[in-house]
Amino acid sequence: MLNTFPPSIRRLINELSKLPSVGEKSATRLAYHLISKAEAFELAEAIREAKARITLCPECFGLAESGSLCAICASEGRDKSVVCVVEKPADVMAVERGGSYRGLYHVLHGLWSPVRGVGPEKTKIPDLISRLERNAATVKELVLATSTTVEGDATALYIANSVEHLQLRISRIAQGIPKGGELEYADDLTLSHALAGRRSL
Amino acid sequence: MLNTFPPSIRRLINELSKLPSVGEKSATRLAYHLISKAEAFELAEAIREAKARITLCPECFGLAESGSLCAICASEGRDKSVVCVVEKPADVMAVERGGSYRGLYHVLHGLWSPVRGVGPEKTKIPDLISRLERNAATVKELVLATSTTVEGDATALYIANSVEHLQLRISRIAQGIPKGGELEYADDLTLSHALAGRRSL
Repeated sequence: MLNTFPPSIRRLINELSKLPSVGEKSATRLAYHLISKAEAFELAEAIREAKARITLCPECFGLAESGSLCAICASEGRDKSVVCVVEKPADVMAVERGGSYRGLYHVLHGLWSPVRGVGPEKTKIPDLISRLERNAATVKELVLATSTTVEGDATALYIANSVEHLQLRISRIAQGIPKGGELEYADDLTLSHALAGRRSL
Repeated sequence: MLNTFPPSIRRLINELSKLPSVGEKSATRLAYHLISKAEAFELAEAIREAKARITLCPECFGLAESGSLCAICASEGRDKSVVCVVEKPADVMAVERGGSYRGLYHVLHGLWSPVRGVGPEKTKIPDLISRLERNAATVKELVLATSTTVEGDATALYIANSVEHLQLRISRIAQGIPKGGELEYADDLTLSHALAGRRSL
């Protein structure tokens, strides 16, 4: 960056280029766009507000606000007998977009990855197990909707083995999603087909 | 957007998707990235600060801070006899990256476009003319570096005609094959411009 440019612009470009898949050229373009628009203040405020308010739901670890239960866990209309296990909060949104799933979620915030040295205890898997034990009377079915990657498959299998004693109906989302695909980027129809075609393990 | 998601996240995704070439999926990905990173506050602050501080240089209309001259106009080391005319502040940065130009700039903030109903008076062309008249003793050369589009060419021609009485040396940036470009893939118009503008070796 050249120092003929105002420091506040250089700082903005620097911060923008830390975003995923935003290089210096895109960051520069975004920065020029932002300083020429009144809505830039709204974006700054939206970032600050989201960052300050968003907390994890104490039940499912999905996104919630100000420490309370998330809208799904708090809803009366959801089927509390089914829990769908996903890797990240964005995956909850992806499944919700499909519109056909009416149960609850559990967000792992990571996958079991021996290669990267991430054990199950670094994810919300222990919380899932204790949640299922605590709610053994209501939860009857577990849908393992982690990505269809090696780590996603391994995590699903690990969870299936860990909760065997609870005698739940356990299923894995169907391979409607291309092998190696990320759940977050799947199109809505593929995702709802994958859910509908889930198979018992 | 589904209302099972916290309002602050929905607001953030909505604001992010207003950015150029950011769709709803990218906006969602960016939003999840931001709320999981500590640096999100820095980005919010960088946007707010840049937006609050950046003003246009009263001389060249490039980017400056807090109403003062921009770093280029204020510099002792620049050649004040040459003024390079560009469309937008980002173009100043593009020319500066080249590193070979040592003169001053004038940013038009628009191009003359009869088709879109943008007359010269809606750009900084009148300011350029009065600036050149005011500095007739020092400015000897004008480089017209607007884009090589129909509007860029028309604007360059309009400026050249408008300042004819000042008897400056006026030039237009060269049009030709980009450095590293394959002749085979150049479009016909570029190629004929490159041929017409050939220079003796």
